[in-house]
Amino acid sequence: MTEPLKLGATIGILGGGQLGRMLSLAASRLGFKTHIYCPDRDSPAFEVTPHKTVAAYDDRSALQKFAALVDAITYEFENVPAGTAETLAPLKPLRPGANALAISQDRLAEKSFIANLGIPVAPHRAIHTANDLAPALGELGGRGILKTTRLGYDGKGQRRVSSLAEAEAAFAELKPYPLVLEALVPFTVEISVVIARGIDGKSAAFDPAENVHSDGILATSTVPAGVSAQTADLARAHAAAIAAALNYVGVLGVEFFALADGSVIVNEIAPRVHNSGHWTEAVCVTDQFEQHIRAVAGWPLGDPSRLADVVMENLIGDRITAIPADLGPGIRPQAYGKAESRPGRKMGHLNRVAVKTPRK
Amino acid sequence: MTEPLKLGATIGILGGGQLGRMLSLAASRLGFKTHIYCPDRDSPAFEVTPHKTVAAYDDRSALQKFAALVDAITYEFENVPAGTAETLAPLKPLRPGANALAISQDRLAEKSFIANLGIPVAPHRAIHTANDLAPALGELGGRGILKTTRLGYDGKGQRRVSSLAEAEAAFAELKPYPLVLEALVPFTVEISVVIARGIDGKSAAFDPAENVHSDGILATSTVPAGVSAQTADLARAHAAAIAAALNYVGVLGVEFFALADGSVIVNEIAPRVHNSGHWTEAVCVTDQFEQHIRAVAGWPLGDPSRLADVVMENLIGDRITAIPADLGPGIRPQAYGKAESRPGRKMGHLNRVAVKTPRK
Repeated sequence: MTEPLKLGATIGILGGGQLGRMLSLAASRLGFKTHIYCPDRDSPAFEVTPHKTVAAYDDRSALQKFAALVDAITYEFENVPAGTAETLAPLKPLRPGANALAISQDRLAEKSFIANLGIPVAPHRAIHTANDLAPALGELGGRGILKTTRLGYDGKGQRRVSSLAEAEAAFAELKPYPLVLEALVPFTVEISVVIARGIDGKSAAFDPAENVHSDGILATSTVPAGVSAQTADLARAHAAAIAAALNYVGVLGVEFFALADGSVIVNEIAPRVHNSGHWTEAVCVTDQFEQHIRAVAGWPLGDPSRLADVVMENLIGDRITAIPADLGPGIRPQAYGKAESRPGRKMGHLNRVAVKTPRK
Repeated sequence: MTEPLKLGATIGILGGGQLGRMLSLAASRLGFKTHIYCPDRDSPAFEVTPHKTVAAYDDRSALQKFAALVDAITYEFENVPAGTAETLAPLKPLRPGANALAISQDRLAEKSFIANLGIPVAPHRAIHTANDLAPALGELGGRGILKTTRLGYDGKGQRRVSSLAEAEAAFAELKPYPLVLEALVPFTVEISVVIARGIDGKSAAFDPAENVHSDGILATSTVPAGVSAQTADLARAHAAAIAAALNYVGVLGVEFFALADGSVIVNEIAPRVHNSGHWTEAVCVTDQFEQHIRAVAGWPLGDPSRLADVVMENLIGDRITAIPADLGPGIRPQAYGKAESRPGRKMGHLNRVAVKTPRK
């Protein structure tokens, strides 16, 4: 455990997308400087700080220079190459640590890790060769979702299969191996818990959000979620146990399937601020971005209390025209500053806040 | 009236202090780029955008280049020189306009303008020469506050006087002339209304804040203010009338004295986001910074609804060590990224949010 960062210190952020951008904005609110490292010259996060490095993630020399310019390092995406983390970690505090990255980069390792904590995950089988498909399908009820173990996001790298023929076709297309076949879980709703854990080991979870996906991409997050208080507490407890077992520092997203009996199954985890936590910026005393920066800085965590009910809607592709076209009462918008709108690209989001009549 | 700014447009901001910084952060949330113009190389706002101009406010060539790089222009302080506004206004939309600047830069012009709207201001007399002091004191009850008409802020450029001798001593020290002698108003509380007005003429006021000053500098703003709903409505109505009469575009701060009979007297106005509106970022659907940027962009105004009670505390000088030392439950901090702490310097603020137990 190192000293807390001082006001005016510089936080280095790997990744220049919307999450890096919003992390930088939160860091600025707290009086920090930020330095964005990203290979893409047109990164949206480059617009919110004067300090940037445009270089590949495996450019050791650039990484070393970057580390020399910052006081702590974090990242906006879980697919930071292991070599990048290995280069940076000895030079400056890297939070969350390489352990969380390694586990969350591999679906099989992640599921084993979580199951070993006594927390339920979906039944699944490793698929190393096409010969593994038939027995796995047999054991999982004849259908499931075939997924890559690495580099999947927003529904990419996965295929729903209902027969051996479909599974074989999907196996031929999905790369790299091994894959994992997951059983279909008869969930009632999908929920997520965004939790922060500080270097002192204390944690603070936001209220669970109820998530609806469309074409594999998060469409809306609604808070409060349509689950019982018991289920919400169970999900928080699982999230806290996972964060503690990882000796985690920062914000962690944990996605769950909620079942009809009130139990929950972990779908996946993400060692970073999470799309299903974007509602927090509109209605929480401390939002997920500030919470992450506080943890990375070694500061005490903030208060995750929620002041109102809210629905977050992702603005995908041309739906970004909702800003400023659809900005009615109760709506708090965020646009990511991406120059080009493409189908399936996350361009911004709206938070619809349930406003109650205030006392004047 | 010009077209609304498009996403990705650049908003130019004159002034690189904390208000410019927070305006830039709000503009970034809305998907705009920002360009900060400030003569001071170490401006805190330079840390939140890669686009800056370091030049004097009367550097016509630099102003013209700046105007060519941006799509609309605003400012963080009311003392933008008239020549600066004259250079910029023909080149790009300047919001709020030169009219609001001219009136708010001169206490006498401001008081006349407001009084002409039928809105009460404190009794006052223009003091052009020392010979004006004795009759003015006589008419105003033998005491008052002697103020410069121009360039005052945070209690600078004013002196409380209780005798002719004190008034003459103050007159000799305060510059430039003319001065204004204001009667002491027997107020019960000081309140302020931060109001936004869009290019469509619609306006949206935040709830009035109750302000406490210390050594002439705002110490705290508390919402709701300790005034009746009728007094709050009256203050809002006056603020709306002033904004309309100025044909104002942007956020305007209006400070009032509230009297025991429920009436209010305008103390002064500021054609910009206002320190007594910093609480809005913690508890409102749309905060004053976003509201100002929306108006400057020609976008519809946002929802000023308040989600919780709140007290904003300015962190002056070394009190900035409250971040991160005093960050307990309900506290949302903001630090301005100023390298050097000096007595009387605004370094950051805390919002203490009155959190009610949320439903999980």
